[in-house]
Amino acid sequence: MAKKTANVLLAHGSSDPRWQQPFVSLTDVVAATIGKDTHIELAYMELCEPSLNQVAEKLSQQGYEHIEIYPVFFAAGRHLRKDVPAQLEALEKELNLTTCLHPPVGQAPEVKQAIANVIAERI
Amino acid sequence: MAKKTANVLLAHGSSDPRWQQPFVSLTDVVAATIGKDTHIELAYMELCEPSLNQVAEKLSQQGYEHIEIYPVFFAAGRHLRKDVPAQLEALEKELNLTTCLHPPVGQAPEVKQAIANVIAERI
Repeated sequence: MAKKTANVLLAHGSSDPRWQQPFVSLTDVVAATIGKDTHIELAYMELCEPSLNQVAEKLSQQGYEHIEIYPVFFAAGRHLRKDVPAQLEALEKELNLTTCLHPPVGQAPEVKQAIANVIAERI
Repeated sequence: MAKKTANVLLAHGSSDPRWQQPFVSLTDVVAATIGKDTHIELAYMELCEPSLNQVAEKLSQQGYEHIEIYPVFFAAGRHLRKDVPAQLEALEKELNLTTCLHPPVGQAPEVKQAIANVIAERI
């Protein structure tokens, strides 16, 4: 049987609440697109809550056995290449679940083209 | 007569060269979309080069009188609300040009929907 799976949007995080709002809004758009039968959460890597650890613990308590993580980043630096994989390895052991870290969503060709189209319209 | 205008994609910047590559690739997609008669450059806010100051100085020397700046960010925090506007104000005086700072490209509804579509396809 397939594992009970949740999806998490992972943003960098900021102490500025105005910075957080666009990620909440993006999560709403993703939720509307994937449909209400698919679970989606927003988590932050640092500087604000909920943290990835907090969200993973909650999902584990809710019976989720697998988490797909989509980084809302344009590129992968130290955070996504080193810190987050190490954090996920620890979470997998601690919570007895599996995880999958996807590439940054900003690197998808469709997203790059959408950015280019938006700029082309503004010029 | 319209001012001679250039466009700049502004990324955060990182000391990791692997982090920079997706922004170079994005700039190529934007350049292909807007066409070769429209000038586009990539600049970084910190940690790597070319900096926004370096790009603005080069554009000024090339005769550009106005720069449109498109931040490759998902949200605006202290950098885009305070640091960059202050930097642009100084550059306008120093180089005798005008600038326009656009909202973060990641906040455009088309970009949010593209991200949602990419995630929906992967789920």
